[in-house]
Amino acid sequence: MSFERKNIEQMSGYSYGEQPEDEGVIKLNTNENPYASSPHVQDALVNFLTKNLRRYPPALANGFRQVAADLHQVDLSNIIATRGGDELLRLLFTTFADSGETIAVTDPTYSLYPVLAKIQDAKIFSIALQADWSLSPDFAETANRAGAKMTFVVNPHAPSGKLVEADQIRRLADQLDSILLVDEAYVDFVDPGKSYGCLDLVNSHSNVIFLRSMSKGYGLAGLRFGYGIGHSSLIEPMLTKTRDSYNLDAISQELARVALLDQDYAKECWGKVRESRTNLRASLIKRGFEVPASEANFLLATVPDSGLSAETIYEGLKSRQILVRFFNVPGMNNKLRITVGTEAENTRLLSALDSVVNPST
Amino acid sequence: MSFERKNIEQMSGYSYGEQPEDEGVIKLNTNENPYASSPHVQDALVNFLTKNLRRYPPALANGFRQVAADLHQVDLSNIIATRGGDELLRLLFTTFADSGETIAVTDPTYSLYPVLAKIQDAKIFSIALQADWSLSPDFAETANRAGAKMTFVVNPHAPSGKLVEADQIRRLADQLDSILLVDEAYVDFVDPGKSYGCLDLVNSHSNVIFLRSMSKGYGLAGLRFGYGIGHSSLIEPMLTKTRDSYNLDAISQELARVALLDQDYAKECWGKVRESRTNLRASLIKRGFEVPASEANFLLATVPDSGLSAETIYEGLKSRQILVRFFNVPGMNNKLRITVGTEAENTRLLSALDSVVNPST
Repeated sequence: MSFERKNIEQMSGYSYGEQPEDEGVIKLNTNENPYASSPHVQDALVNFLTKNLRRYPPALANGFRQVAADLHQVDLSNIIATRGGDELLRLLFTTFADSGETIAVTDPTYSLYPVLAKIQDAKIFSIALQADWSLSPDFAETANRAGAKMTFVVNPHAPSGKLVEADQIRRLADQLDSILLVDEAYVDFVDPGKSYGCLDLVNSHSNVIFLRSMSKGYGLAGLRFGYGIGHSSLIEPMLTKTRDSYNLDAISQELARVALLDQDYAKECWGKVRESRTNLRASLIKRGFEVPASEANFLLATVPDSGLSAETIYEGLKSRQILVRFFNVPGMNNKLRITVGTEAENTRLLSALDSVVNPST
Repeated sequence: MSFERKNIEQMSGYSYGEQPEDEGVIKLNTNENPYASSPHVQDALVNFLTKNLRRYPPALANGFRQVAADLHQVDLSNIIATRGGDELLRLLFTTFADSGETIAVTDPTYSLYPVLAKIQDAKIFSIALQADWSLSPDFAETANRAGAKMTFVVNPHAPSGKLVEADQIRRLADQLDSILLVDEAYVDFVDPGKSYGCLDLVNSHSNVIFLRSMSKGYGLAGLRFGYGIGHSSLIEPMLTKTRDSYNLDAISQELARVALLDQDYAKECWGKVRESRTNLRASLIKRGFEVPASEANFLLATVPDSGLSAETIYEGLKSRQILVRFFNVPGMNNKLRITVGTEAENTRLLSALDSVVNPST
């Protein structure tokens, strides 16, 4: 006999990218930042006194929230700090999605969304992206017709890296009957020349919330810290009702705060990643891969029709201690998602790729 | 228009004890350990390299889980590590309690349970404790008749500190049709002379799970770390399906592991708390309070009938920079829950109490 709820019994959990403990592996499979966090974060850690852990942490993480509010020029009431972006996603389901309600997403999208939907016994309604990974012109209308309670748009999109321009996000906010979550986990890597940005929507639109993560842009995947920037009517119930009472420990609150404050360091890292992204894309295209421009810290490379399969290349790289991401699902199984590493890592990737594709040379 | 689910819209959040930032306040209101964690925890913190935060943390916290499994002589599959005991409680609801299902609890009990029930749209069925805070003899039968899906017993009980003996827990495990959660957040402070312990139930009973917390016994409330010890069929769906993919950051996994390993240090602290508990109880009884024996790190003191109200004493202590817990609910509003502090803190509490009760002397 099982005590599990029926929807839980029938579901599978989230399957994450491989996380090898071997330090020698070049890990280009789960979109971490190739650069460590700001040196100020290490200083803050070393100076943290564990006797301060005796007491409960600040329940609302107000120190961090204030820094985030200042940075994004919004009010404190527009910010919720969460244990990674994932906790924000869970809270959105818990707070707003009743059993049987519908969440509209793009296809493909972040594979965690359907898992969270199953946990909450909600439904996922997938709307196919166009061939160039852009949203279809009737995306909002389709989501509305499906009766969506929430609509999730990853921007820049994963796994393609395609950016939806700010104007289109603004139109979605206007047109959608549902909550609009813009999952900006990778937004830090967008070229500043694009002038992307529409956080002001959280003041004008009661249905809009943005997700931010410290995992990618700030080199802190291991810290589990993210936040939401949203209309106060969306933030408030998550902050005061559905969030675990003390969701963030005292150390991570302090480290995330310090990391967010050091924008100069973070921007320097983002610039280096963009430069490497340009170089890596050119090198892959030269080798016959089809690689759309990406505004994230990864590239989605379609393998040449004439050569080895994506899976074979993935396995060949893996045997050479280089991990990239292969999704064995229809529409994706001729592609590899490759995280942009340091220049040295990218060079090793390319040379390993050459030896996989052309073992005789 | 609100996007909130109806049950969320209608509920209130958890109300926590006050957490003043003023370091000068003597805080005897939220049951923290008066002693900091093991010095080894500070060493581990100082030696942690933030560059290791660049990657995702171990998803299952296996380093910590193995130490916990060894300590409690159970299998790795019997352990789940969680962000405080609170996350384990939430996961129990998410995984096992469907909308409308019933959770049996004692009255009074931990005030978070009804909040989590409301979030999940589940029902709470309260079974009154007897006058001496013990479980009524027909507790299991009553829970079964109510159709409980889960039954939660805090042991030692909060806010009374009363211990349910191991034999009675064993009988409950046999008799209950539901999952039995034994919330052992305060178990570290039980007198070893009581020979309490029944963790072996997790091998023989598919319905049994224990909650442990690092917040109280290990002086790590600010770290947010706890764990469950349960039958593998209860642990597995929480571990692989309903838990946030990376629920624990890399730093807390390491610090909690080191803290749990240093049992000698922890036991020394627990012994000091027990000694202070005995002294403080005697001092309160001498002042006319009724104070049942407690096996936790707090005392529940009923104020003398003839004197000031509990609320007045609470306010008087607060104005003297000493926080204790006052619950303004029927059956509790003539009592104060006082966390056992250091000997110095307890002395200051008693002298402040005297000046509140007898301001002229």
